[in-house]
Amino acid sequence: MSTAPRLSFVKGHGTENDFVIVPDLDGGLELSAAAIARICDRRAGIGGDGLIRVVRSSAHPEARGMADQAEWFMDYRNSDGSVAEMCGNGVRVFARYLQRAGLVEAGDLAVATRAGVRRVHIAKDAGDAARPGEATAGSDGPITVVMGEATLPEPGPEGEITVTVGERCWPARNVNMGNPHAVAFVDDLAQAGDLFTAPAVRPASAYPQGTNVEFVVDRGPRHVAMRVHERGSGETRSCGTGACAVMVAAARRDGADPAVTGHPVTYTVDVPGGRLVISERPDGTVEMTGPAVIVAEGELDPSWLGTDLG
Amino acid sequence: MSTAPRLSFVKGHGTENDFVIVPDLDGGLELSAAAIARICDRRAGIGGDGLIRVVRSSAHPEARGMADQAEWFMDYRNSDGSVAEMCGNGVRVFARYLQRAGLVEAGDLAVATRAGVRRVHIAKDAGDAARPGEATAGSDGPITVVMGEATLPEPGPEGEITVTVGERCWPARNVNMGNPHAVAFVDDLAQAGDLFTAPAVRPASAYPQGTNVEFVVDRGPRHVAMRVHERGSGETRSCGTGACAVMVAAARRDGADPAVTGHPVTYTVDVPGGRLVISERPDGTVEMTGPAVIVAEGELDPSWLGTDLG
Repeated sequence: MSTAPRLSFVKGHGTENDFVIVPDLDGGLELSAAAIARICDRRAGIGGDGLIRVVRSSAHPEARGMADQAEWFMDYRNSDGSVAEMCGNGVRVFARYLQRAGLVEAGDLAVATRAGVRRVHIAKDAGDAARPGEATAGSDGPITVVMGEATLPEPGPEGEITVTVGERCWPARNVNMGNPHAVAFVDDLAQAGDLFTAPAVRPASAYPQGTNVEFVVDRGPRHVAMRVHERGSGETRSCGTGACAVMVAAARRDGADPAVTGHPVTYTVDVPGGRLVISERPDGTVEMTGPAVIVAEGELDPSWLGTDLG
Repeated sequence: MSTAPRLSFVKGHGTENDFVIVPDLDGGLELSAAAIARICDRRAGIGGDGLIRVVRSSAHPEARGMADQAEWFMDYRNSDGSVAEMCGNGVRVFARYLQRAGLVEAGDLAVATRAGVRRVHIAKDAGDAARPGEATAGSDGPITVVMGEATLPEPGPEGEITVTVGERCWPARNVNMGNPHAVAFVDDLAQAGDLFTAPAVRPASAYPQGTNVEFVVDRGPRHVAMRVHERGSGETRSCGTGACAVMVAAARRDGADPAVTGHPVTYTVDVPGGRLVISERPDGTVEMTGPAVIVAEGELDPSWLGTDLG
């Protein structure tokens, strides 16, 4: 409605972990931390859990070394503008954007991130399979991301880990997915309480940097549901690494270990924002499959951002 | 990025009370409550405190009777999709949309709402005054809305009103702006606590339908700051009628009554989301002036909304 220069964006989410995607294919845009925080503000801006800039790897100094393996770099920022390495739900929305924009087709894809190159697979959905001539336009098939390997530190000399909410206390499993998790199996997800504040996790020495905490119930064979308190954020609708940690903890509880049997193990993990399917392979790799939805696309008038746009 | 039919929208806010504006000038769109709730969802949709459909009064059955006084009807919906009568911060954003879209010019404007015709004034900003030939394009001058009259019910037989948070208790003034308010002057806005839960207001008989509660501190001569607990919503960044109630309560506390002196009285009222200027006139009318910001415009792909679009 005005002639001021605009910033194009796409809003999308994966299991309700939501992002503002900013295409900047040739890397010309300078977004300050303050500008990103304003864009991610849910009332004064567009709103999002984070902002993802889409840049050609060859055009970004942090990604140039990966350009021969991955054409596109996911420049992920937290909603306060700080730089982050990776986000499992974010990679799916990033891949969906590339697909919808016609920059990649369904199938295998490598994405450059600050945590290294991530392998991604965009499924061709049923609609596309029925109309092969129309390729991937409009496809909303699930997207799989290789999330890395889980490690399960054994309890230290101070003993087993416990999670406490109010009067209740549960044993918990320590699972590290590059970031720390304490996974507790409970009878009812309501027992986790309002999760405004972090549950107490002991011994403190098990998590010198603090931890994410997952509460898990069974829904059926190899099917669980979870709630999560993310370190520093409170309860969220979805946490990709948390869902992976829960899958691995559930598999070990159920006596399933792909490294022993040589067969992959798959669990369905329901999070408050939707459903994820998570597999652990014999080589220890954990893969997460889930939806990615493009909600809207638009342009913002940067005048209200101040003078922070490059 | 796809060829599916799209729904155009604008996102904007007034003192961080934010709205999804949907232009539907000729009234052809049917938005179900479920579709509105999905659009207003902050993670799975666009996100907003409410949705405002912009319709020509002559094209809407609820507004046809006002069409000779007000060309445009503000069809306001709460974020759960329910119908609402009016929203003071919403009217400003509605007027800014009309101005930016070239549907009205700066100056006086009448807006049809479910609470009747509201008079609005869009100020020409300094930039426009310097470039008269460019009319109102891009203007971001403040917008004034006539909010109606305040009534101040006297305490009933059960005595003065009090507001309690934790161990602290304050006397409060009962101000009705079409909806109820309990206004308490405090020493420090932090005394209101986290405002997750509603403060206790007594006697209950003073507010049979419950009440909004405002906590107020002085910032300077005829300048106050407030926090608000909105009935049914918790703490919000801004409440237009609450700011008006606070202004009237502060004026009476300070011995100022325009009906007595014959002169209007004006206060600056800081809310968490910004600054409002509120005047009471000798005829009892309360006018609220504040900012209205268009953040972005875009299109959403209604496929994720289900089949609810008309």
